[in-house]
Amino acid sequence: MRTVVVYSGGLDSTVLLAHLLAEGREVHALTIHYGQRHAREIESARAVCAHYGVEHRVADLRALGAIFGSNSLTNTAVDVAEGHYTEESMKTTVVPNRNMILLAVAAARAIALKADTLAYAAHSGDHTIYPDCRPEFADAMDHAIGLADWHKVRLERPMVNWSKSDIVRRGAELGVPFALTWSCYKGGAKHCGRCGTCVERREAFRLAGIADPTEYADDAPAA
Amino acid sequence: MRTVVVYSGGLDSTVLLAHLLAEGREVHALTIHYGQRHAREIESARAVCAHYGVEHRVADLRALGAIFGSNSLTNTAVDVAEGHYTEESMKTTVVPNRNMILLAVAAARAIALKADTLAYAAHSGDHTIYPDCRPEFADAMDHAIGLADWHKVRLERPMVNWSKSDIVRRGAELGVPFALTWSCYKGGAKHCGRCGTCVERREAFRLAGIADPTEYADDAPAA
Repeated sequence: MRTVVVYSGGLDSTVLLAHLLAEGREVHALTIHYGQRHAREIESARAVCAHYGVEHRVADLRALGAIFGSNSLTNTAVDVAEGHYTEESMKTTVVPNRNMILLAVAAARAIALKADTLAYAAHSGDHTIYPDCRPEFADAMDHAIGLADWHKVRLERPMVNWSKSDIVRRGAELGVPFALTWSCYKGGAKHCGRCGTCVERREAFRLAGIADPTEYADDAPAA
Repeated sequence: MRTVVVYSGGLDSTVLLAHLLAEGREVHALTIHYGQRHAREIESARAVCAHYGVEHRVADLRALGAIFGSNSLTNTAVDVAEGHYTEESMKTTVVPNRNMILLAVAAARAIALKADTLAYAAHSGDHTIYPDCRPEFADAMDHAIGLADWHKVRLERPMVNWSKSDIVRRGAELGVPFALTWSCYKGGAKHCGRCGTCVERREAFRLAGIADPTEYADDAPAA
């Protein structure tokens, strides 16, 4: 089975990549670069794909920035919120219709490769404050993607019922090179250890009972 | 009512723009630049929007060609740091799933503007041999776009039952500056008069009984 994976270089999509490879699939990774501040993620994506010998492409959508509203991931003037995600701090990270654009471009890649499926790393911890993280949105996109070409591609979310610590546990089973992955929204030399995704990353390792190999700039244990 | 129009600078979408303005709507035009064809269209789009005093943005997706171009098939990764792609190198590129990508990006603009609708110039002459021109694809995209954000945008195709000559007739009623629009696939200084879209354009004026102000390089009447 041939599958295109929406691949960010982060923890979740790296475990998804390894999980699908372990199923014996032919995996093609696609990273969407839409001008997010943490381009650092893309270096991680390349490193992980090289590790697994997986074909990897980057779709450069940075020129789209002009039509997105101001938000903290594309506008460096807005501070990245620290600590656990709250409704308010998460709203600042929303790029309008980001997931549809991402899935539309990834579906194009899947159609070009005559892939059977397009997979992405939605999981049970995804915050439904994002309307385009809701299952009904994913179902609608699956339907639309299936109609977009005579070659029918199925949209799948293999980890949709997994928690973030389930993902870490599965990654550990599969020997995923966690240290190569990138989560931090601040995009410095090391993970900051304090932003929303760093806090979630640390917590997932802790709850999974797996040693966290990540180097954090702020190495104090999470409060 | 506020509407984002997917606007190519061609005949059909120009009449759509004028038609929606005549309904008293607040119209925002969005042109998607794939680069695989005639940038000449974009100059026309700018000129028509200036004529009508309509806000106009261009979403530059030329970099997407890099993941679909034939010369990138053997690359394992595309360098995201690479600069502009030339018009020439993009000409051979066909982007699959083009309509979904186009609608996803335009929906992002509509969401950012809190528009009520997103309109595009599908008409009865659109060739349903293309899977993503089928009504069921448009319905699926309308459904997905409606779920993509808490602010619900409706996808509309106001001319879906119009023929190309109906479009010319409506344009003539509205005083559309036809000479500013661009259809030709060849993208020269004048419309070539011979390619598929030029033939359709000439025929639409002839069937509508409207004088065609277009300057064609080959000005012999269509056979």
